Amino acid sequence: MAKSEFEYVREQERDDRLPKFNWIVVRISSCDSSRFEDQNDECLSNLMNVSAKSLLEKFADIVFAYGFGPEFSFIWKETTTFYERRESKILSLSISFFTSAYVMKFKEFFPNQELEFQPSFNGQIICFPGPGGKLIRDYLSLRQQLCHFYNQRYVCLLALMKNGKTMIEAEKYLEGMQESGMNELLFKEFGINYNNLTAVFRKGSSIFKEQVEEVVKLNDAGNPITRTRNRIKLEHKDLTWSCFWRFHPQFFPD
Amino acid sequence: MAKSEFEYVREQERDDRLPKFNWIVVRISSCDSSRFEDQNDECLSNLMNVSAKSLLEKFADIVFAYGFGPEFSFIWKETTTFYERRESKILSLSISFFTSAYVMKFKEFFPNQELEFQPSFNGQIICFPGPGGKLIRDYLSLRQQLCHFYNQRYVCLLALMKNGKTMIEAEKYLEGMQESGMNELLFKEFGINYNNLTAVFRKGSSIFKEQVEEVVKLNDAGNPITRTRNRIKLEHKDLTWSCFWRFHPQFFPD
Amino acid sequence: MAKSEFEYVREQERDDRLPKFNWIVVRISSCDSSRFEDQNDECLSNLMNVSAKSLLEKFADIVFAYGFGPEFSFIWKETTTFYERRESKILSLSISFFTSAYVMKFKEFFPNQELEFQPSFNGQIICFPGPGGKLIRDYLSLRQQLCHFYNQRYVCLLALMKNGKTMIEAEKYLEGMQESGMNELLFKEFGINYNNLTAVFRKGSSIFKEQVEEVVKLNDAGNPITRTRNRIKLEHKDLTWSCFWRFHPQFFPD
Amino acid sequence: MAKSEFEYVREQERDDRLPKFNWIVVRISSCDSSRFEDQNDECLSNLMNVSAKSLLEKFADIVFAYGFGPEFSFIWKETTTFYERRESKILSLSISFFTSAYVMKFKEFFPNQELEFQPSFNGQIICFPGPGGKLIRDYLSLRQQLCHFYNQRYVCLLALMKNGKTMIEAEKYLEGMQESGMNELLFKEFGINYNNLTAVFRKGSSIFKEQVEEVVKLNDAGNPITRTRNRIKLEHKDLTWSCFWRFHPQFFPD
Repeated sequence: MAKSEFEYVREQERDDRLPKFNWIVVRISSCDSSRFEDQNDECLSNLMNVSAKSLLEKFADIVFAYGFGPEFSFIWKETTTFYERRESKILSLSISFFTSAYVMKFKEFFPNQELEFQPSFNGQIICFPGPGGKLIRDYLSLRQQLCHFYNQRYVCLLALMKNGKTMIEAEKYLEGMQESGMNELLFKEFGINYNNLTAVFRKGSSIFKEQVEEVVKLNDAGNPITRTRNRIKLEHKDLTWSCFWRFHPQFFPD
Repeated sequence: MAKSEFEYVREQERDDRLPKFNWIVVRISSCDSSRFEDQNDECLSNLMNVSAKSLLEKFADIVFAYGFGPEFSFIWKETTTFYERRESKILSLSISFFTSAYVMKFKEFFPNQELEFQPSFNGQIICFPGPGGKLIRDYLSLRQQLCHFYNQRYVCLLALMKNGKTMIEAEKYLEGMQESGMNELLFKEFGINYNNLTAVFRKGSSIFKEQVEEVVKLNDAGNPITRTRNRIKLEHKDLTWSCFWRFHPQFFPD
Repeated sequence: MAKSEFEYVREQERDDRLPKFNWIVVRISSCDSSRFEDQNDECLSNLMNVSAKSLLEKFADIVFAYGFGPEFSFIWKETTTFYERRESKILSLSISFFTSAYVMKFKEFFPNQELEFQPSFNGQIICFPGPGGKLIRDYLSLRQQLCHFYNQRYVCLLALMKNGKTMIEAEKYLEGMQESGMNELLFKEFGINYNNLTAVFRKGSSIFKEQVEEVVKLNDAGNPITRTRNRIKLEHKDLTWSCFWRFHPQFFPD
Repeated sequence: MAKSEFEYVREQERDDRLPKFNWIVVRISSCDSSRFEDQNDECLSNLMNVSAKSLLEKFADIVFAYGFGPEFSFIWKETTTFYERRESKILSLSISFFTSAYVMKFKEFFPNQELEFQPSFNGQIICFPGPGGKLIRDYLSLRQQLCHFYNQRYVCLLALMKNGKTMIEAEKYLEGMQESGMNELLFKEFGINYNNLTAVFRKGSSIFKEQVEEVVKLNDAGNPITRTRNRIKLEHKDLTWSCFWRFHPQFFPD
């Protein structure tokens, strides 16, 4: 293009590269709070998980994702050089790709519903110093504690309301009650063993890549020829105990 | 939630409020370059425009949008306090909402096609000092010059290739040719008056809010009772000349 | 240097260029609050002014400075490209140069004192969108209002304490008193016309460059040959009224 | 102060807190390059060291400093909450305090010279992710390699020039010569064993706090009563080998 008199406004773009040696967390969160009111909506949870999974398939440098309810966190490798680590690129591509997965796959999980409103998600980026993975492991533990906190409370509220209490009465009843108190309430009053409830709601969803060895064919001597392949795995395990990370030392070692 | 041992990772979030007294431009751009290869695909252009329009309907503080080909720029009021002007919120919500519009309305404009890939968009935020609007007007002019540059070149390439040249030959032929030279080439060789071609491709699309007065009903004396209403308007006018802004002084006055 | 195994830590430096089209204010402030307790210490005020003046002499792109008590603000041209507008360079050089002036010239203003402690200043950078100068003019007005507020209060406290009140009693007496009330108090009780007090304390100090025409010599016909020269000027005028800026339209025009 | 019409410009200040879990390096560098031309000026080196030392005395959260020639790096604890970790405060106070030390102590090291120009320093802040100290140790190693590189070259140039070569001839002679080559040149041609030269120039200066136990008095039984005290130590040791850090494990453990 011939030199333009308007060129002078062009270089205003900022250098927004995220600092090196940091893990990059993209946390996204649905803006449609009404849809997520029923915290135990299995279809919605599956739709969120499958959308998250598509991000791990698309972006090689996302090594782990964890989500519950309306939120999902995606952990990018601390060494990623995707788009030179530019914050705006990493944030906008993650959000955009998640949104289009969510809309495209909606019908699969809600065959009898139409999307009445355009769904939207907001997001933010949080950096955690590496190279060690302790801060990231603790970040994931904190999210899972929030998952537990919201879900246990939700189950109690539902039980109390089924028993005739109004929402306000139920909330008052739970005021100041600790975790163990809620477990006892569920067990004694309603015969519910909290720890037997569906894991996806109690523990949230961890999605990660795993290398598996596959037999491709047998060689002439009849011995298997194998290759390693990345497989994306979905689990609902406890992340706050170190045992999960001992089984998966490859993600966030010290 | 009871105080957690993992709380210490919580406050890592940065304050990313954009500076006051600045216009905020969100520029988004499709990542699916192959789909935008045909720069004169009217269906695609309409899909982009209708998606952009939905942003102006959703977010009151977007006052103007301009786009062409795979890109769209959204101008947020310099006084907006949307989400405290937090960059991550403004960027991610704009991107997310645009993406879901694009996916949901795709079928409307491409009834015989399926979306084979998840579409995605990247975005960035650019701040232009206000309160005066000169920098924004010049930014929009620059984008429109780029629109013109790419489109004129594209039309020439198509014409030369229709005439038997290969892509490489056609590109070589145009090398170093100025705007006036291309206009002449189109007119003399191919009988095409460039300025008569479809405006949406030559000038791009401007989308903005306009107040219109509507007659609601007549009063008892038979006189009209009116109300003002925001209407969203789509135009393909020239922004580089001051005459457009003289007709629309409300947007970016000096 | 031969390629080192430690090279990998080198590129961590951030791009901290300040946004274009913005005025850059460096505001510095003394950390030695005890020295500035006597707000009407003329020697100290002269030392601050002369140190500030040395910055305007050193850095061509500082166009204006305003200070009172322990603080000084330096306005860098909105078009400056000094060190590519890097924030850390502009901040640290300004602070460093001011500090060395202050220490070197101390003896001149306090011939009978030794510097017992190492003086230090902290600073920060504030950007104000341009190119128009209204925001900068209003920023300077705000600082001058603060100057007035602190000084008027200080003069009242001194007068009350000279009259026998303790500091606490004097502060209580002034509680909630408005500007006009304080002026009246000074006049009626102590016969002091506030507006006749030393201007440097009431209005603070403005330092700026002014072009003056000098006669260099006479030519053969006896007519003067002149040249323009930058002269640095110190004034204690009122900046909150537009009349100052009408006399000096070159600094921050609309 | 009564609410002012200019209040609206007040909140423009940015939140510039540096990210948590990061070591903060303030690197300052003299702007008076001519004064540092003689790289082996022992007085100047002592003045720099004593100025740096005053920073460690003043600011409790600086745990280590390393410098050579015109530059010094100060490492602030990764957990420091000094001024809420605000970048502008940490940078400007460090620079300012160093400058005033340099000017005030100048006479002590240059009793027969006057400071003709106001000395000034520029500075920048670099963050290195913690909590582990490996990145910081490697950063310090890199600076020390630079010290070695410049000094060895300087000694060779001086020797060649003493031997009759011009500066340009000497530089040409050294072009492409490796470290070992230079050592050999010094030894064979000039009888200089590089490793026996003054350590401060070969290795630079490390300044750090060390806890020492002091006998305060003897108790009644004649046994010593001790207290621990911080002492500031200056050394010219090799930091690139791990042995230094094994002797000082308290600073930057893994």
